[in-house]
Amino acid sequence: MLRVAGSELAVGLERLLGRPVAGATDGASGGGGPDGGVWLGTAAVAEAGLAGTAADWASPGPEGFVIVPTAGEREGAPGGVAIIGGDERGCLYGAFALLRRIATGEGLPATPHREAPVAPLRMLDHWDNPDGSVERGYAGRSICFSGGEVTHDLARVRAYGRLLASVGINALAPNNVNVGRAGAELVTARGLGGIARLAAALRPFGVRLALSVNFAGPILLGGLPTADPREPMVGDWWRTAAERVYAAVPDLLGFVVKASSEGQPGPHSYGASQAEGANVIAGALAPFGGVVLWRAFVYDCEQDWRDTVTDRAKAAYEEFVPLDGAFAPNVALQIKNGPMDFQVREPPSPLLGAAPRTRKLLEVQITQEYTGQQIHVCFLPPMWKEVLDFDTHARGPGSTVAELVVAGGGESGPAGIPGGGEPGPAGMVGVANVGDEPGWTGHPLAQANLYGFGRLAWQPSLSAEAIAREWAALTFGSDETVRDVLTGILLASRAVYESYTSPLGLGWMVTPHTHDGPDPEGYEYSRWGTYLRADRDAIGVDRSVARGTGFTAQYHEPWRSIYEDRERCPPELLLFFHRVAYAESLPTGVTLAQHVYDSHHAGVEAVRGFIARWQELRDRVDPVRHAAVARRLRAQLKSAEEWRDVINAYFHRRSGIPDAHGRPLH
Amino acid sequence: MLRVAGSELAVGLERLLGRPVAGATDGASGGGGPDGGVWLGTAAVAEAGLAGTAADWASPGPEGFVIVPTAGEREGAPGGVAIIGGDERGCLYGAFALLRRIATGEGLPATPHREAPVAPLRMLDHWDNPDGSVERGYAGRSICFSGGEVTHDLARVRAYGRLLASVGINALAPNNVNVGRAGAELVTARGLGGIARLAAALRPFGVRLALSVNFAGPILLGGLPTADPREPMVGDWWRTAAERVYAAVPDLLGFVVKASSEGQPGPHSYGASQAEGANVIAGALAPFGGVVLWRAFVYDCEQDWRDTVTDRAKAAYEEFVPLDGAFAPNVALQIKNGPMDFQVREPPSPLLGAAPRTRKLLEVQITQEYTGQQIHVCFLPPMWKEVLDFDTHARGPGSTVAELVVAGGGESGPAGIPGGGEPGPAGMVGVANVGDEPGWTGHPLAQANLYGFGRLAWQPSLSAEAIAREWAALTFGSDETVRDVLTGILLASRAVYESYTSPLGLGWMVTPHTHDGPDPEGYEYSRWGTYLRADRDAIGVDRSVARGTGFTAQYHEPWRSIYEDRERCPPELLLFFHRVAYAESLPTGVTLAQHVYDSHHAGVEAVRGFIARWQELRDRVDPVRHAAVARRLRAQLKSAEEWRDVINAYFHRRSGIPDAHGRPLH
Repeated sequence: MLRVAGSELAVGLERLLGRPVAGATDGASGGGGPDGGVWLGTAAVAEAGLAGTAADWASPGPEGFVIVPTAGEREGAPGGVAIIGGDERGCLYGAFALLRRIATGEGLPATPHREAPVAPLRMLDHWDNPDGSVERGYAGRSICFSGGEVTHDLARVRAYGRLLASVGINALAPNNVNVGRAGAELVTARGLGGIARLAAALRPFGVRLALSVNFAGPILLGGLPTADPREPMVGDWWRTAAERVYAAVPDLLGFVVKASSEGQPGPHSYGASQAEGANVIAGALAPFGGVVLWRAFVYDCEQDWRDTVTDRAKAAYEEFVPLDGAFAPNVALQIKNGPMDFQVREPPSPLLGAAPRTRKLLEVQITQEYTGQQIHVCFLPPMWKEVLDFDTHARGPGSTVAELVVAGGGESGPAGIPGGGEPGPAGMVGVANVGDEPGWTGHPLAQANLYGFGRLAWQPSLSAEAIAREWAALTFGSDETVRDVLTGILLASRAVYESYTSPLGLGWMVTPHTHDGPDPEGYEYSRWGTYLRADRDAIGVDRSVARGTGFTAQYHEPWRSIYEDRERCPPELLLFFHRVAYAESLPTGVTLAQHVYDSHHAGVEAVRGFIARWQELRDRVDPVRHAAVARRLRAQLKSAEEWRDVINAYFHRRSGIPDAHGRPLH
Repeated sequence: MLRVAGSELAVGLERLLGRPVAGATDGASGGGGPDGGVWLGTAAVAEAGLAGTAADWASPGPEGFVIVPTAGEREGAPGGVAIIGGDERGCLYGAFALLRRIATGEGLPATPHREAPVAPLRMLDHWDNPDGSVERGYAGRSICFSGGEVTHDLARVRAYGRLLASVGINALAPNNVNVGRAGAELVTARGLGGIARLAAALRPFGVRLALSVNFAGPILLGGLPTADPREPMVGDWWRTAAERVYAAVPDLLGFVVKASSEGQPGPHSYGASQAEGANVIAGALAPFGGVVLWRAFVYDCEQDWRDTVTDRAKAAYEEFVPLDGAFAPNVALQIKNGPMDFQVREPPSPLLGAAPRTRKLLEVQITQEYTGQQIHVCFLPPMWKEVLDFDTHARGPGSTVAELVVAGGGESGPAGIPGGGEPGPAGMVGVANVGDEPGWTGHPLAQANLYGFGRLAWQPSLSAEAIAREWAALTFGSDETVRDVLTGILLASRAVYESYTSPLGLGWMVTPHTHDGPDPEGYEYSRWGTYLRADRDAIGVDRSVARGTGFTAQYHEPWRSIYEDRERCPPELLLFFHRVAYAESLPTGVTLAQHVYDSHHAGVEAVRGFIARWQELRDRVDPVRHAAVARRLRAQLKSAEEWRDVINAYFHRRSGIPDAHGRPLH
């Protein structure tokens, strides 16, 4: 890692400065030293070999770093800088931080600048299948797998490791959480050869692998009659599997598991609990310091649409809160940001503020499954900020998700990526949006989401604007106009996307399966538990305690009361929590129907604005990328018009309420 | 064919009589002769070798036969029978006819019984893909193809030939009309080896092959820059292809073509007409006596749902009527029974009564894509009878589809399966419902549809009841109770299916793509041109001239006026032709909404009745088939309840009209 940090620094400086940089040598002295150059090393070495007060480079802790200006240390010598890492990963991140400062024009710090990541675990989940397809992938085929095995040529994976290190991501699960047979076989001797190669390619960039495993592995691979976690032979099978896996990849982070959910096998098949399921695997991994990342995305996907009592939003909380305290210390629940499934607008999942004796990870979706499929520009850090900044009040005011969950500051003990017997991991997991498309993410602007995920996991207090401006400068250069326009488009984009899709937290008006484009009642009579229940008067599920499913009771005060009360409920979540008549007046003074019409028309106009603003950059952005973005913006406009017309027609046909401005409602 | 006829007769008689039958010899004399046995031969041979008046066996014409009782011809000799075929195919059909008479208990005729098929062409279209999958197949994999080529072991195909001959089917297109690359390659040298084997397997059963071809063959296979039918090189390519195909299969019927439809390539891509497209292929086939079966299923499947003027129901007529007279004589338009696409209730296609100088074939769908997917019992001959008996009034009263189209009695010249230069073919095409499932059709009772298709193409005047009773006896034996119950279920089944799915000719309330189960607005905002346009007051597309799309003008009088007038419009088609308010009173005295509720509840109750009646046969039907049918009836009931609840909820939510009988509307 230190060597990679040094060479990245040299290459980066050369490109940024436009001139060769004298070769660095290993260790604490020599060319590129603190006077008139860059010194890079861990704190332990720095103390031995560098001048200066010890306080300047007192160990910044695991993965952290301090950038110390060394100009003036010795009279007459030119200014220099030292990057002192808490460990080798810290050096890597410090090197990229310095490059970022230079590239964004921020420059060298005047006083020692110290950073350390807030989230110990900053992880990507790929939903890549061994055949090379990517579930919910919008940027081509998998970079990790092809033809049933790990890609032969790992050059792209190494480039990806570099990309991940540059934004501080330190873990990766390469295979889909929906684990089919081919995915399950990755833990066999045959599969592990490729996994070991993949781990070796990413290790120098500070990225540890995890594997998604199939809970029925004991049956599928072991030929056992059961995968019941309470059967001793099942535990034996997992222990043997762990031995085999860790022999191949000694620094494996652990296993990701989606169990008893959406057709994946799990402990429920045997009447066992999710905790019993997680713990049998955790026990097998503990001797190797491995962890279990256990997905909390568990709900009844065979729901009867006639059933108006069961509420999918309540499922994860109901499943896991009774198990609080029952999970092994090296298990963390991986919890989606909202209680449903990555809609463009949901309240924070109440489980993030519950189960205090359970280690929890925040999971967000970088790939734009429900947020425009990498055709629409939709910059997601503002959405993620909402959940990171959400004050759950779990321990009174100030209990933010960033602190309780991501930094691991909750009651479940200190955070870390443990060895056996130590407390469980904390952090943030993002479902990746990359593929083998040359620009990684299909839409060039979708790169900003990957960048933003890494930056927020590192430091949740960064503003979305700061992230957007950083990314724009790093990606499109120093032109202030370009940076301003891009930042403006990015920051507006999620609200714009929301405004022309489904309104006020309603969600789910998408085409089933693909989730691409509008189909207002596509999920209305199906088994997935997501209903609008629109009739000729009103729309939405009432989730209040007083009149509805009682979902609001899963929140601490004051949220419980705020969400319960339709007058105090945040307007953008009105239809998530309440059933509202089309003719009802909203606080803005217009009816619900009129709000829908206005919002959808305004959204389309905003996309036209994006196009106009992007057009102005024609001579400021290289033609290839300018055309690529312009093409997608045109496709976005067409799709936005379709959304507007379908959703408006839907509300008009149901309500009979004409548009106050006489626009067509079809 | 004569040899097959003889051996089928011998085998059939042995099984029916339960004792060995003395071996037949070839020709007109010897064992099995007219006295005390069965004589089988063509009319030409019969005249030379059999006693009796010539009138008894005057040639019954192509494919026809006469069954002549010979008892008493010579005193003291036991009764016998002669089967005299107009040609070898006639002998085959006569042999099976005799077996059918015996098996159904009808017995030998007292006087000479003469039959000839009404439809010269009685054909099945398989939608089988070379990879072995079957589009809209509900009975397993293809019996014709596997792994990209014609099945290696053709034993099942030979059994199928026997099955087809027994119901008089004389032609088969084995590959899907949606022709992908693998299907297109069947006309290459490599593909034709398998096709020749397939043809050889079916030839002894009187079944001729046709091939579905890809209009872009000149590009895909020939490497030409165009498939424009007006380019000489394109005609050359088709001629070369025809030479190659006919060298491999000299008696090939011809080519089936779906062009410029649903993504299939066609002449429209070059600004050429459907006639120009058909004729270039027809010209290539003419020297070999081949015909082009050109599908009339052409419509705009990229329609804008906002467009309320374009009406998919009008498409085929608008496309083809202006081309009347422009088609080569060996082209026939293959026209679906209704103007849309095989819904459970549609009016007859107006194109069947139009374009008098164009040879037309009637296409029906035996596979139950929209009629229960071979889980629901849905006996289709009653539906097909409606269209066969429909009096188009094209040449005044009495112009039935059976006579004008199927028998080819229209103005477009005499019917037949022509050699080059002769008039075009006439007849009936059915999309097959078979697969490699042991019982051919998945649902045992779905066999009755294949049987009924063959019988109706042979003789459209047969009643649906007669067909049902025949099939029940042939399939389940002589038990009168079994026959009565089965006939009752079959005859009621289509009306029952209709009653609990979408009402009054509305159609299209199905799940997109799979077409399985209800999704009332699944197609509402999509590109397929099939809309309900339900709002809070009314539902349906007005297709009248006075107020709507003007579709009714495509019919001759009196239908034009009948369909135009909502008072005279057949009630079962009310929502096909008219937009009706939920609160409007129907002639039955209940509102539209109440009619929907009542119909859907009654339909489910009728399915319960089927189950009860089938249960009574438990000791009269072999356990395996009894259980197979019972299992599907239970699945049908579950699905019917889902249809009832979804459609009723849909109408209730839109209309707000409560059920007069207080049943739940969800």
